[in-house]
Amino acid sequence: MRAVDVIVRKRDGQALTPAELAFIVDGVIGGTIPDYQVSALLMAMFLRGLTPAETVSLTEAMAASGRRIDLSFLPGTKVGKHSTGGVGDKTSIIVVPAVAACGVAVMKSSGRALGHTGGTLDKLESIPGFRTSLDAATLGAVLRDLHCAFVGQTADIAPVDKKLYALRDVTGTVESLPLIASSIMSKKICEGSDALVLDVKVGSGAFMKTMDEARPLARTMVSIGRHVGLRTEALLTDMDAPLGRAVGNALEIRECIETLKGEGPGDVEAICVALAARMLRLGGVVPSLDDAAARVRRALTSGAALERFRALVERQGGDPGVVDDPGRLPRASRVEVVTAERAGFVQELRADLVGHASMILGAGRERADAAVDPAAGVFLRAARGDRVEAGDAIAELHASEGGRIDRARRLMASALVVGDQRPAAREPVLAVET
Amino acid sequence: MRAVDVIVRKRDGQALTPAELAFIVDGVIGGTIPDYQVSALLMAMFLRGLTPAETVSLTEAMAASGRRIDLSFLPGTKVGKHSTGGVGDKTSIIVVPAVAACGVAVMKSSGRALGHTGGTLDKLESIPGFRTSLDAATLGAVLRDLHCAFVGQTADIAPVDKKLYALRDVTGTVESLPLIASSIMSKKICEGSDALVLDVKVGSGAFMKTMDEARPLARTMVSIGRHVGLRTEALLTDMDAPLGRAVGNALEIRECIETLKGEGPGDVEAICVALAARMLRLGGVVPSLDDAAARVRRALTSGAALERFRALVERQGGDPGVVDDPGRLPRASRVEVVTAERAGFVQELRADLVGHASMILGAGRERADAAVDPAAGVFLRAARGDRVEAGDAIAELHASEGGRIDRARRLMASALVVGDQRPAAREPVLAVET
Repeated sequence: MRAVDVIVRKRDGQALTPAELAFIVDGVIGGTIPDYQVSALLMAMFLRGLTPAETVSLTEAMAASGRRIDLSFLPGTKVGKHSTGGVGDKTSIIVVPAVAACGVAVMKSSGRALGHTGGTLDKLESIPGFRTSLDAATLGAVLRDLHCAFVGQTADIAPVDKKLYALRDVTGTVESLPLIASSIMSKKICEGSDALVLDVKVGSGAFMKTMDEARPLARTMVSIGRHVGLRTEALLTDMDAPLGRAVGNALEIRECIETLKGEGPGDVEAICVALAARMLRLGGVVPSLDDAAARVRRALTSGAALERFRALVERQGGDPGVVDDPGRLPRASRVEVVTAERAGFVQELRADLVGHASMILGAGRERADAAVDPAAGVFLRAARGDRVEAGDAIAELHASEGGRIDRARRLMASALVVGDQRPAAREPVLAVET
Repeated sequence: MRAVDVIVRKRDGQALTPAELAFIVDGVIGGTIPDYQVSALLMAMFLRGLTPAETVSLTEAMAASGRRIDLSFLPGTKVGKHSTGGVGDKTSIIVVPAVAACGVAVMKSSGRALGHTGGTLDKLESIPGFRTSLDAATLGAVLRDLHCAFVGQTADIAPVDKKLYALRDVTGTVESLPLIASSIMSKKICEGSDALVLDVKVGSGAFMKTMDEARPLARTMVSIGRHVGLRTEALLTDMDAPLGRAVGNALEIRECIETLKGEGPGDVEAICVALAARMLRLGGVVPSLDDAAARVRRALTSGAALERFRALVERQGGDPGVVDDPGRLPRASRVEVVTAERAGFVQELRADLVGHASMILGAGRERADAAVDPAAGVFLRAARGDRVEAGDAIAELHASEGGRIDRARRLMASALVVGDQRPAAREPVLAVET
């Protein structure tokens, strides 16, 4: 087989065979197919598309490029969770202990903040001492005892994805539905779960800006899951405004703790309950979705989810004292407020711009090798739909000395639209794909 | 400017600006844009196409990537000639001295054989002593004295083309009309001519198999020429069967000498006269095409073209004795015949397969670094339309000892179709684009 012949077939709109896709993936991993051929193929895939069968085959070949995690030592059906990423998206930190407290085991692999979106690892590491890289023995013990753990994505899971993504990033081939779907699902296949719930974010702060883009992605990932034996369900959730009030690492942990106590913002709780309920049903512990949701809510109000979180923090090296005293989390040395310039209703709080402001303040990264400030971020005092008067504080900007507060302030001014009409309420969960 | 942004614009079907195309060409030449970005852009160009304006801008940027030859020391309008390549296509070797003998100066840059197509340089070098790499002083003197010369393409003419072609060759992006047109025309622009006649070959032995493919290419190149100030006309000529009877280097030189004496095969003479007549008219020495054709024919029958060729062979280091005694050309040690298996009319003699057979015998190259056998090739005793009896010799296979005659014989058997009906006559010149 020659790479150029595979490129030509895709260029001409033909469907590649599983053998051809495996040949390409092996060649990328082995370094026998040069980058210039891979990037030409990626552009042909971008413009010609991949059939559902090709997407499945590509995903399987990518998954086969590395290690598969074995979670069979844990009892019952293991259920994973993945979000396509957003601003203020702290759901994993709530859902994982809640689901475990309800009897379904979950090992959550997460990434780091990049651009305007946050990363679960950075959020967790704002808890003093918290470690997301545990040795195998410790991780196994934590999972066995608590039925949950937070870990970083490791390089040996679908390693070809890292190479392909690096090429896609510099060749204008990122925004391809089948390539995005295969990238996500190839990793999820290897993470040892038996089922998966996806949170596909939709809106200004998400990768997919509209339902028209997000729904086919959700469908494709659900379909891949079905074909590879990983039962998958997807929620499409609103990411036009940030999720909750807190955007930034320690700020979000504080909001997670409130939500784990049953005192979180309505949108955060709604999405967490919806995700966790599906995980419980997929895990086979509650047959009805309504019963599952009720069980999750009970776990939040009873303190069961919070206790599981406290135990997890402790076992992963963190200070469990933050659960009772969030004041032990890092705090910014400077906090400034952004005020409303006029009276009216908050009609928009564009998630991408708030996320960008938070990144500028130090909570995120422009480049993958930058450090984050655990205390930095944006706390929203007003939410979409709220009535405000001129001069009211809309948001707090949390930064360290020397932080770029002025630029963040300008971004917040662009993010915020105050108008005379109360905007129509938006549902946190927009749609479901199963 | 960033390469990835240019890629994304082309990916999305937008027209690139002259500045963007110049940025890309400069980056390829300077090595500042990596191959993987160039190949992704080439694939996007292949699938999205280039507008006529983009094609002109790309051609100009490519032309600007190297040296321009100055032929202003020669009198009158200098007219170039270029063929897209075929099997038995020896027209340059006849047209160049004929045109010079009629008063139009022409410096012909040519390439070498690759795959099933021959190369003018290899053909000329089958003349003992002939050199196609002359130092500047010698070349200038030859041009001044004879108003013609044959030279090899040099690396400093549109050097970016070599890099781009090497990438296109391994990324499935060769067969793009605007990329082919800009590759050819960027080099022609730099070769010092004021006008250009193109011979776009059409058929099994050509790059363009059908008129539907060839005509847009011809039109595009004529249009580029008009926009860059290089008056260009194109003939579309038949390349379904080999041109003439001889395929192979010394075999073709022998046929060239016959044609320069006015005794060549009808199809060879027809295309040579058509090409040369347009060159004379573009050169401004004869206003009417009919008069120009008559003048070319006179140059062939009077011996004027032959004498110019003899002088050129001598000045380029070759043995001029071959003109009167073609027996001085290299001769194959083995000559075997291919016979007709049945009686009937020769309905097809597929040029690509005959060319492939000739290459196998040693006349051509599978890889660019291989050597050629000047004596090897195929001589067709029968042509398309001829009546043959079973057992009649259809072709001679010329090879050296150890040549792969059996494989060439099988290719010839596939190339030849003998049937009961006399095939309709085909015109050598199929169409004109001006």
